[in-house]
Amino acid sequence: MSSSDIFIGETIGTAILILLGGGVCAAVTLKASKSRNAGWLAIAFGWGFAVMTAVYIAAPLSGAHLNPAVTVGIALKDGRWTDVPVYLAGQFLGAMIGAALVWAAYYGQFHAHLTDREIVGGPGARKTSAKAVEARETGAGPVLGIFSTGPEVRNAAQNLTTEIIGTFVLLLAVLTQGLNDEGNGLGTLGGLITALVVVSIGLSLGGPTGYAINPARDLGPRVVHALLPLPNKGGSDWTYAWVPVVGPLIGGAAAAGVYNMAFA
Amino acid sequence: MSSSDIFIGETIGTAILILLGGGVCAAVTLKASKSRNAGWLAIAFGWGFAVMTAVYIAAPLSGAHLNPAVTVGIALKDGRWTDVPVYLAGQFLGAMIGAALVWAAYYGQFHAHLTDREIVGGPGARKTSAKAVEARETGAGPVLGIFSTGPEVRNAAQNLTTEIIGTFVLLLAVLTQGLNDEGNGLGTLGGLITALVVVSIGLSLGGPTGYAINPARDLGPRVVHALLPLPNKGGSDWTYAWVPVVGPLIGGAAAAGVYNMAFA
Amino acid sequence: MSSSDIFIGETIGTAILILLGGGVCAAVTLKASKSRNAGWLAIAFGWGFAVMTAVYIAAPLSGAHLNPAVTVGIALKDGRWTDVPVYLAGQFLGAMIGAALVWAAYYGQFHAHLTDREIVGGPGARKTSAKAVEARETGAGPVLGIFSTGPEVRNAAQNLTTEIIGTFVLLLAVLTQGLNDEGNGLGTLGGLITALVVVSIGLSLGGPTGYAINPARDLGPRVVHALLPLPNKGGSDWTYAWVPVVGPLIGGAAAAGVYNMAFA
Amino acid sequence: MSSSDIFIGETIGTAILILLGGGVCAAVTLKASKSRNAGWLAIAFGWGFAVMTAVYIAAPLSGAHLNPAVTVGIALKDGRWTDVPVYLAGQFLGAMIGAALVWAAYYGQFHAHLTDREIVGGPGARKTSAKAVEARETGAGPVLGIFSTGPEVRNAAQNLTTEIIGTFVLLLAVLTQGLNDEGNGLGTLGGLITALVVVSIGLSLGGPTGYAINPARDLGPRVVHALLPLPNKGGSDWTYAWVPVVGPLIGGAAAAGVYNMAFA
Repeated sequence: MSSSDIFIGETIGTAILILLGGGVCAAVTLKASKSRNAGWLAIAFGWGFAVMTAVYIAAPLSGAHLNPAVTVGIALKDGRWTDVPVYLAGQFLGAMIGAALVWAAYYGQFHAHLTDREIVGGPGARKTSAKAVEARETGAGPVLGIFSTGPEVRNAAQNLTTEIIGTFVLLLAVLTQGLNDEGNGLGTLGGLITALVVVSIGLSLGGPTGYAINPARDLGPRVVHALLPLPNKGGSDWTYAWVPVVGPLIGGAAAAGVYNMAFA
Repeated sequence: MSSSDIFIGETIGTAILILLGGGVCAAVTLKASKSRNAGWLAIAFGWGFAVMTAVYIAAPLSGAHLNPAVTVGIALKDGRWTDVPVYLAGQFLGAMIGAALVWAAYYGQFHAHLTDREIVGGPGARKTSAKAVEARETGAGPVLGIFSTGPEVRNAAQNLTTEIIGTFVLLLAVLTQGLNDEGNGLGTLGGLITALVVVSIGLSLGGPTGYAINPARDLGPRVVHALLPLPNKGGSDWTYAWVPVVGPLIGGAAAAGVYNMAFA
Repeated sequence: MSSSDIFIGETIGTAILILLGGGVCAAVTLKASKSRNAGWLAIAFGWGFAVMTAVYIAAPLSGAHLNPAVTVGIALKDGRWTDVPVYLAGQFLGAMIGAALVWAAYYGQFHAHLTDREIVGGPGARKTSAKAVEARETGAGPVLGIFSTGPEVRNAAQNLTTEIIGTFVLLLAVLTQGLNDEGNGLGTLGGLITALVVVSIGLSLGGPTGYAINPARDLGPRVVHALLPLPNKGGSDWTYAWVPVVGPLIGGAAAAGVYNMAFA
Repeated sequence: MSSSDIFIGETIGTAILILLGGGVCAAVTLKASKSRNAGWLAIAFGWGFAVMTAVYIAAPLSGAHLNPAVTVGIALKDGRWTDVPVYLAGQFLGAMIGAALVWAAYYGQFHAHLTDREIVGGPGARKTSAKAVEARETGAGPVLGIFSTGPEVRNAAQNLTTEIIGTFVLLLAVLTQGLNDEGNGLGTLGGLITALVVVSIGLSLGGPTGYAINPARDLGPRVVHALLPLPNKGGSDWTYAWVPVVGPLIGGAAAAGVYNMAFA
């Protein structure tokens, strides 16, 4: 694979991952969406099939890492680091493009949601909800969850632990089955199995932090949230932003270590 | 593939697609349906598995395009336009047959729903609901959603954008994996993967417009809605009808362009 | 395949199909079940994966028809009728065994449900619900739905039509892909694809009648319902019993006819 | 496969199985979890995909039994008992590790849940709920369900029957298809099909007892529940603990018997 194929594949693939993944969060969150309140099962399947779609599209160009933790885990397994910077650059660029596309696809829904005085709790609201007040105070705006993850109980040690565990499971599955390697392991089933592993992590380990398990998935859209001209969007919660970057990298590295010890 | 095989395959396949796709909309919408209010996840999986079933049935005859955007995208990729009119004719005919079959399968449910004075808000209703009044005024009758899509926020630019983005994702997946080509890409897994891509688009990009992503899927049943002798059915919302035709064609063409530049 | 293998395979397979299919109906219906009120999506996936499990178990012995409509459709396609009586005998015996196993697995739940005076509306109930009264009057007891199907709108012509359409879709998928034949079509994927076709039919065409689409699935458990010593079980609704037998046979034959004309 | 590979594979695989399976129970049960009250479908898919993820990870090392009932069933089929103790040791150790990891991943949620006076019904609670009182009296603490199964209707004969039937179905599917054997049956699809069989059992037979269908899955986490320093955790319900151990072993042995008679 040439560097340009890797860059284009990772950019397109991660853009589609975040478009579809952020999209399902917008779909169940925003006012005037047909699938508002569709529930956690929609979130978990939505993110899983987002991974599947992006993997099948990007695989011919870049092998479809779409996640710095995957790139680092595979590099630690194979001992090759040459292409890592190209992978990471494509992933972060793609994640930002994807987040902007969510905004385009749900433009009217964002506007309807963020100008609804009941929801955003502005000065003229009939009742300023406790949740809206808390959101403004903690810096987590009401729509930040469409872009990036955040904890239900804010505790850096536990939040980091949860992200490490979730990413460890993802990477161990990827590494043992060679899901993203050509001519290896599960072959063309790989994208589907990876997707269902992500559904599994979402259902089982998503409750505490929203399962970033991917630094690009969290940081890229957070930057876009900070840049977008959305009214009443609240803060981008930068104090939490390091957890979904550092946790997945540790989890991916730990999985590579276990792989090299027990499976290689 | 002979022209008659293509025509028969696309007609049968698209009829089954719309029978099952419109069927799940009827199932969750109509009074006296066992699965009324089953929710958006039922809609998204229902349409996805409708695609899967139709693809596996039609594939041996026509390759199972079942969607003018797919036909146009593949023609732009391959540079062959000879069979395109036959594909489109079968698709629109099949879509109309499928919509009529939904009416047959849910005959009693349509009648129970449309003669319920609470629901349709007729002159003798105890309370004419705001939604029923709005439906009559905008031309979007209460059961039109079983046949065709419509926007939650009526804004042609955004609605078109959402349909373009959704169809772009579908076609990029189809083109990169050769999902509908014989002896290519995912092989017999193709129908299942395509189905789950459609589930993904439904969960992630269906909120604003109901994801037509297929001109035949929207226009054919809209014609049938206009023709059927349903009481209190409301208008067929023809002012919106061009969006789910033009948007998917643009999205499909854009995906073919990206494919030819980056993947070919 | 020997006659005894066919008989044993169809008996075991259909027993597992009805155990798991009737089981999910018990699970969402009965008092004191952990998954009570899990909704229609649970029903549709539950029946689909019941088919999948039963198909993979029975396939090595009998090819896993598990449904008289499948047996008749395949006989009409192949022109071989020799083994048909053996298939049908195993299917009806298996369906009755499966229904009895549902009763065993949910014994305490049946008892708790049927002796709850609020639910069954006995003479001492604080309030005899309209639904309980209607159930006793129409002969459709409150737990009959765990065993057999019934219509929401009682109209023999429509009910028959819905069952014909649903079974037509199932058989066309089975026949075009050779799902249950060895060394044919989808191979070992076949059980999974068949399962998802059944999920599709359940989501899209199950609303009016509960989608029997299988004479053995409906008639066998109805006999068991009539025989079981359940208190307050209500009637077995024999006036409806012919519809889910005749409809699926017509639908299966129609699919074989279309197959022989268009696909052979 | 060497003994050390078997032990490591079963330990890692069962740990991941219980981490993800117990995780989804924590996710839908505990206060301050994003997916609280996600419903039974989330439970059933969560456990199914937990099996899938664990099977794909452990398969290269140990063949991925992850369940004493599977190990015993396969030993009865093949007549080889040499490795059985190693399998069982890995399974119970892994199950305990997995349960401890659930506690780590949901640490803040456990704390928030168990110190909520409304939930646990402590002496100062505004209202001591009947359920909380019953939980303390029967010994089934409010969070025990995250670790181990328990019956809705406490009746040893029925509870044992339900576990026997559920495990019989699982093992018959595993044995007829050779799901966990190398170069046999469904090949690399096996992990996915096994997962969906488990989803099926969960949807259809999980209502009465919560479908342990695996002695290690129930006993290992019950020991961890007894050991963990959780406030207000209630008893570990040891009087029930033999049912989800004995029932699955009988069900697995029965399936092996049927297999040897009818399928071998």
